[in-house]
Amino acid sequence: MIVVIKKDANEKSVENLITWLENQGLRVNVNSGIYQTVLGLIGDTHSLNAELIGGMDIVERVQRISEPYKNANRKFHTDDTIVDMGGQKIGGGNFQFIAGPCSVESSEQICGIAQQVHKAGANLLRGGAFKPRTSPYSFQGLRDEGIEFLLQAKELTGMPVVTEIMNANHLPMFEQVDVIQVGARNMQNFELLKELGRQKKPILLKRGLANTLEELLMSAEYIMSEGNTQIILCERGIRTFETSTRNTLDISAVPMLKRLTHLPVIIDPSHAAGDAALVYPLSMAAAAAGADGLIIEVHNDPAHALCDGPQSIKPDAFASLANDVEKVLAIVNKKG
Amino acid sequence: MIVVIKKDANEKSVENLITWLENQGLRVNVNSGIYQTVLGLIGDTHSLNAELIGGMDIVERVQRISEPYKNANRKFHTDDTIVDMGGQKIGGGNFQFIAGPCSVESSEQICGIAQQVHKAGANLLRGGAFKPRTSPYSFQGLRDEGIEFLLQAKELTGMPVVTEIMNANHLPMFEQVDVIQVGARNMQNFELLKELGRQKKPILLKRGLANTLEELLMSAEYIMSEGNTQIILCERGIRTFETSTRNTLDISAVPMLKRLTHLPVIIDPSHAAGDAALVYPLSMAAAAAGADGLIIEVHNDPAHALCDGPQSIKPDAFASLANDVEKVLAIVNKKG
Amino acid sequence: MIVVIKKDANEKSVENLITWLENQGLRVNVNSGIYQTVLGLIGDTHSLNAELIGGMDIVERVQRISEPYKNANRKFHTDDTIVDMGGQKIGGGNFQFIAGPCSVESSEQICGIAQQVHKAGANLLRGGAFKPRTSPYSFQGLRDEGIEFLLQAKELTGMPVVTEIMNANHLPMFEQVDVIQVGARNMQNFELLKELGRQKKPILLKRGLANTLEELLMSAEYIMSEGNTQIILCERGIRTFETSTRNTLDISAVPMLKRLTHLPVIIDPSHAAGDAALVYPLSMAAAAAGADGLIIEVHNDPAHALCDGPQSIKPDAFASLANDVEKVLAIVNKKG
Amino acid sequence: MIVVIKKDANEKSVENLITWLENQGLRVNVNSGIYQTVLGLIGDTHSLNAELIGGMDIVERVQRISEPYKNANRKFHTDDTIVDMGGQKIGGGNFQFIAGPCSVESSEQICGIAQQVHKAGANLLRGGAFKPRTSPYSFQGLRDEGIEFLLQAKELTGMPVVTEIMNANHLPMFEQVDVIQVGARNMQNFELLKELGRQKKPILLKRGLANTLEELLMSAEYIMSEGNTQIILCERGIRTFETSTRNTLDISAVPMLKRLTHLPVIIDPSHAAGDAALVYPLSMAAAAAGADGLIIEVHNDPAHALCDGPQSIKPDAFASLANDVEKVLAIVNKKG
Repeated sequence: MIVVIKKDANEKSVENLITWLENQGLRVNVNSGIYQTVLGLIGDTHSLNAELIGGMDIVERVQRISEPYKNANRKFHTDDTIVDMGGQKIGGGNFQFIAGPCSVESSEQICGIAQQVHKAGANLLRGGAFKPRTSPYSFQGLRDEGIEFLLQAKELTGMPVVTEIMNANHLPMFEQVDVIQVGARNMQNFELLKELGRQKKPILLKRGLANTLEELLMSAEYIMSEGNTQIILCERGIRTFETSTRNTLDISAVPMLKRLTHLPVIIDPSHAAGDAALVYPLSMAAAAAGADGLIIEVHNDPAHALCDGPQSIKPDAFASLANDVEKVLAIVNKKG
Repeated sequence: MIVVIKKDANEKSVENLITWLENQGLRVNVNSGIYQTVLGLIGDTHSLNAELIGGMDIVERVQRISEPYKNANRKFHTDDTIVDMGGQKIGGGNFQFIAGPCSVESSEQICGIAQQVHKAGANLLRGGAFKPRTSPYSFQGLRDEGIEFLLQAKELTGMPVVTEIMNANHLPMFEQVDVIQVGARNMQNFELLKELGRQKKPILLKRGLANTLEELLMSAEYIMSEGNTQIILCERGIRTFETSTRNTLDISAVPMLKRLTHLPVIIDPSHAAGDAALVYPLSMAAAAAGADGLIIEVHNDPAHALCDGPQSIKPDAFASLANDVEKVLAIVNKKG
Repeated sequence: MIVVIKKDANEKSVENLITWLENQGLRVNVNSGIYQTVLGLIGDTHSLNAELIGGMDIVERVQRISEPYKNANRKFHTDDTIVDMGGQKIGGGNFQFIAGPCSVESSEQICGIAQQVHKAGANLLRGGAFKPRTSPYSFQGLRDEGIEFLLQAKELTGMPVVTEIMNANHLPMFEQVDVIQVGARNMQNFELLKELGRQKKPILLKRGLANTLEELLMSAEYIMSEGNTQIILCERGIRTFETSTRNTLDISAVPMLKRLTHLPVIIDPSHAAGDAALVYPLSMAAAAAGADGLIIEVHNDPAHALCDGPQSIKPDAFASLANDVEKVLAIVNKKG
Repeated sequence: MIVVIKKDANEKSVENLITWLENQGLRVNVNSGIYQTVLGLIGDTHSLNAELIGGMDIVERVQRISEPYKNANRKFHTDDTIVDMGGQKIGGGNFQFIAGPCSVESSEQICGIAQQVHKAGANLLRGGAFKPRTSPYSFQGLRDEGIEFLLQAKELTGMPVVTEIMNANHLPMFEQVDVIQVGARNMQNFELLKELGRQKKPILLKRGLANTLEELLMSAEYIMSEGNTQIILCERGIRTFETSTRNTLDISAVPMLKRLTHLPVIIDPSHAAGDAALVYPLSMAAAAAGADGLIIEVHNDPAHALCDGPQSIKPDAFASLANDVEKVLAIVNKKG
């Protein structure tokens, strides 16, 4: 960590700061320049409150040199983490297709789609039982009944299931769910993250609409610091000034996260674009960029889905997408 | 609502869509142009699923003409709502100063600051007991004990208190809190909003870091649709590309929200800038732009605060700020 | 175009507006709803001043239904445009690699790199003679001498050359340049665009850092409306809140531009990421998403380049990148 | 400047880098930590190429500690610069109102408005002769004739005039113009900036739609480094995700620029919001935040202006705005 001292800072105060920092167990190098003095802090600065120091009268600015996350940091854990999602491995060269409808609507619907996407190449089933909707007047999901239908589809096809949680109080309903998803809007619902950190199952953590990669990793760190290290990160589009697509898929997040962390990284092309016609090109791009998986909305009748219709593709479109993505995986040495 | 039909759409399908829309109780005007057909829907489209229609094969695009929120909409409620915050009125020409430390640290600290800000012109006391922090390694607040200390300060000074909730399970601890705050990261924690909609006390709802004004009003709508209409909206800076300030205060949000809704609107200059030196100019700007109040971080010893030090000002700075803001209020006909 | 009339608008004024619109040669459909009246304009609204109408007292809002660009619009020109860049075709299934250093530094440098990238699979040579730099204290390019060196490399290798123009007064120096590039910062330098519209050679138009796809197409329209229809569009990263990469590559721009326009679309992964290690994954993603080409910075000695070192890759890295990209092109049916 | 060395960097290479840096006249402090080594560079790093160093194999990251601009930096020029705009002083406690129509449309129009805004309190006249328009099909301004009309209005009222330049070739037409404006889209048209640096009259430099304050100051530096130090900076709204206003006025830019530079700072509320109803609250906010002036669009007949109608206010609205702004100026000790 670097502490930039103000030009006209009182010398005695600077000395006091240095002593205080040394008492925190750090070594302090003083770089006195013509215009200003810069302190270089050496040692473990993770628990140091950068804002506190930045708030002192004599301090102009504080800059972190090392990342504020530890458990998720590739520097301290160089090998890829391989997460077991109900028997399906992801990470470390293993690629997974997670597919299914936006919302679970009925047992027939979810069982039907499950069979179709399974046949088309998906190994995991997704489907929303609890739906975070911008409007209180929109369909909010079938809730516990939705999870029941998902589990019926699981029994029928053998596919592990992924579904979103919105409230830690609902955890008992998720007992047989294989992977618990945290949605973009809850990425910084820290109370929920801590509770999930105490669970024994994989967490699929979606990046918030306007959260940096560092913040995503800090949210992963919340879960990991409670003991649960089985995390899959998911980029699903960020909010920018561009309006022709619903969100802007940050494809660079894939190689950048791969550099910063050992956790698996997947892409959600359906929510990123909000447009069925973009799901194929963005899925291909994701695989080519090195993603470890895709989570895709598939619906047998997109025009009548209860939510998110415009971004869902049909099972046959998914089948041909999966086929082409497999070819890309062969080029980048991944097992699909 | 406007439904733009694709250029080469099948006529029969278009007729089916029109019939379906009419069955929803809407009148449909068909505008057939040279390049395309546009359907104009007349009637109550609030409960219509725009995404569902937008997802149909024959539909190019759907555009809302009227706002998707009702209870918060000024069109249907032209008079300003005046919210009673523990005896202090806000809105409809009434301005309030809410001041206090970022975090409650001890009974002495909060009681001391409360007395100082009260003397300096604040009518409500703020202070965080539950703290949403990006890092799991940062101080997370004194929790129930923090609320207890806040209530001691309330008893001492008579100031109603405002404090943030992060989990609906904590509601029993908030029984004597006057105003419950929803932080920016929880603006779309819909489970929490619904629960707060069932409470009988005012909710201070902060705009999310990257949420539009429409989304903020939809979140207010979540609370209102459950019965609680005592809401104060708060702009606290949005995330942009600019890095010299922590966030970008969206000052235009004040007059724009005033146009769109009847709810009171306040500004949080402390979190917007993340810089104590900007609190005065931004507070002045907020009052001049027509805000109904300010929520300001004040600390007796900013350099030793457990969190958010850099953005806190001292009580005497707050006193002179309040004094100058009062002069601005006189120009814009507000009661401070 | 849709004109939303204010709730309480004077009827006589609305009639006047309708008459005025009809006098512009448009047909006007009146949609009178319970809350408001909406006018649907039918006919050619390209030359209509939406802002003028939107500024009228009785008008709440104006929304365009059809795109404001004509020449660049795929609706009126369904086949892909194939641009001939000095003998190398791009678009309509033809893919091109454009490679070379950020800046031309010497005849030896550019000739050496040209030979290497040619051997590695590039068909066009890039290199900056005029360099737009944020700081006046940074190297600004070799200017006319730089172009001379580029032409020497062209003669040596037979590769057509692409280089950036910053001032229409410099056009005489570009006489033998094959493709003229407009940089991101000049995307809305309309005086320059108009002048380039009168040239007889292809223009590589880069998207501005914070410009929408519609604005990019409007800038193409500036060039096309003057007669030059040989335009290649280039996505090179947009400015967002994310700071771990220099810009955010908007990969969705590829399929979205393909839908909106018939012009070829290429990606610049070097400037998008500002990071050599990201050039390979982003190039692969671009090809997989359907781009028509790549423009890549290649330097024989990245650590000593006069500018943009961090994002340049070495010739051998470029060769293996081109090799893998070719494999992706085979999957998406493009000729590399 | 801080250079962070990679964890596994070759020692010999690090020594070579240190020697090279010392040969540039810098002192180098080596901070060897447990996880990494950080070099602190002391001396004049303005001309150092941070990207070049950042591109070296052994370097993880480079961070500037001091600002990359010199002439515009308040650290080296603590007193406010007072710019004389054709006899009207701005900066150092002097506030100016610049008002007039978006476009000059006729002699009658500009002379009429000039008289009205002069009477209402404006000391400088604005009006566009050259108009940067997104669409080639929109009105592009009266060009030389427009400037002629502006000068007629100047002669009539005695008000100095401010108007925008789009092409350095047009400079001869600007000979009698008092202040030359650089529009947001040309903020990084470096060829134009350099030419304006050789002029002997004040430059009103508008911040680009998506440019940081540092980039704005670097563009000022381009002008200043050529000798012209008479610059007025103008914040006119930035591009963000919010769509209810045309742009987001970055009000914090006022106090932040005041801290970073000694140049005067003004606000353009008309372009920031794109909405006449927001001009009053944003003007009040600007004055309250410490701006040195306002540039406001005023039209005698907004509904028939040839461009930008929605954001123009009428002369009487301007008069009452100016009146209230004067009251705010008294509070913040400015001379209006």
